Amino acid sequence: MFELDRRLESDSVLVTHLDLCQVRLMNDARWAWLLLIPQRNQLQELHDLTPSERATVIEEIASASESLKTMISCDKINVAALGNVVSQLHIHVVARVEGDANWPGPIWGFETAVEYADDRLDQLV
Amino acid sequence: MFELDRRLESDSVLVTHLDLCQVRLMNDARWAWLLLIPQRNQLQELHDLTPSERATVIEEIASASESLKTMISCDKINVAALGNVVSQLHIHVVARVEGDANWPGPIWGFETAVEYADDRLDQLV
Repeated sequence: MFELDRRLESDSVLVTHLDLCQVRLMNDARWAWLLLIPQRNQLQELHDLTPSERATVIEEIASASESLKTMISCDKINVAALGNVVSQLHIHVVARVEGDANWPGPIWGFETAVEYADDRLDQLV
Repeated sequence: MFELDRRLESDSVLVTHLDLCQVRLMNDARWAWLLLIPQRNQLQELHDLTPSERATVIEEIASASESLKTMISCDKINVAALGNVVSQLHIHVVARVEGDANWPGPIWGFETAVEYADDRLDQLV
């Protein structure tokens, strides 16, 4: 049974399940920010996935990126697998807009999250 | 003919060519930091690659990540396609060590690069 890291779970809400990844929306209204989490236990790095799983994850990343770009008027998609704080493998897919809260710098570690109103979160999901 | 962005070129040195990507080492001694640049013009996003190219790029990312982890004693590999400053598609693959210059924060936009001594750069390449 897949176990999701508690911090990832508490910082985000479930959007959907793809073949490999669980897609979650970060509860931070500053950016349209998805997490893709491969539903396999004990993964930390992209190279911990099998080649077949990697082929799937890159397609799911591309699909999430294109969906964000279609839904949100944005200038750039940022994709990243970092994991310096939470080691469970998770991939950030974020719509960036020129002039956003930390443009053109990175979003990670920048000030504190601004939570969505509940109805807005439900609407986005 | 493939055209490499001038800023990427001046900030890094060529290591090798893989099937799709040119691998470069960033001239910044603070981190062991590779760039993978798919050698196709006018790419900005991972989803601008064809599915076949994406299957290749994820294997080249995994290969670069494993090589870094084998060569460098590190705690985490950071992989990211950002492009907020230089829009030409390029993927960062970085060895992170607990206690490094900005651990556990991101490396991008953090203070200024510390250049390698020339002989050290040659040795690493």
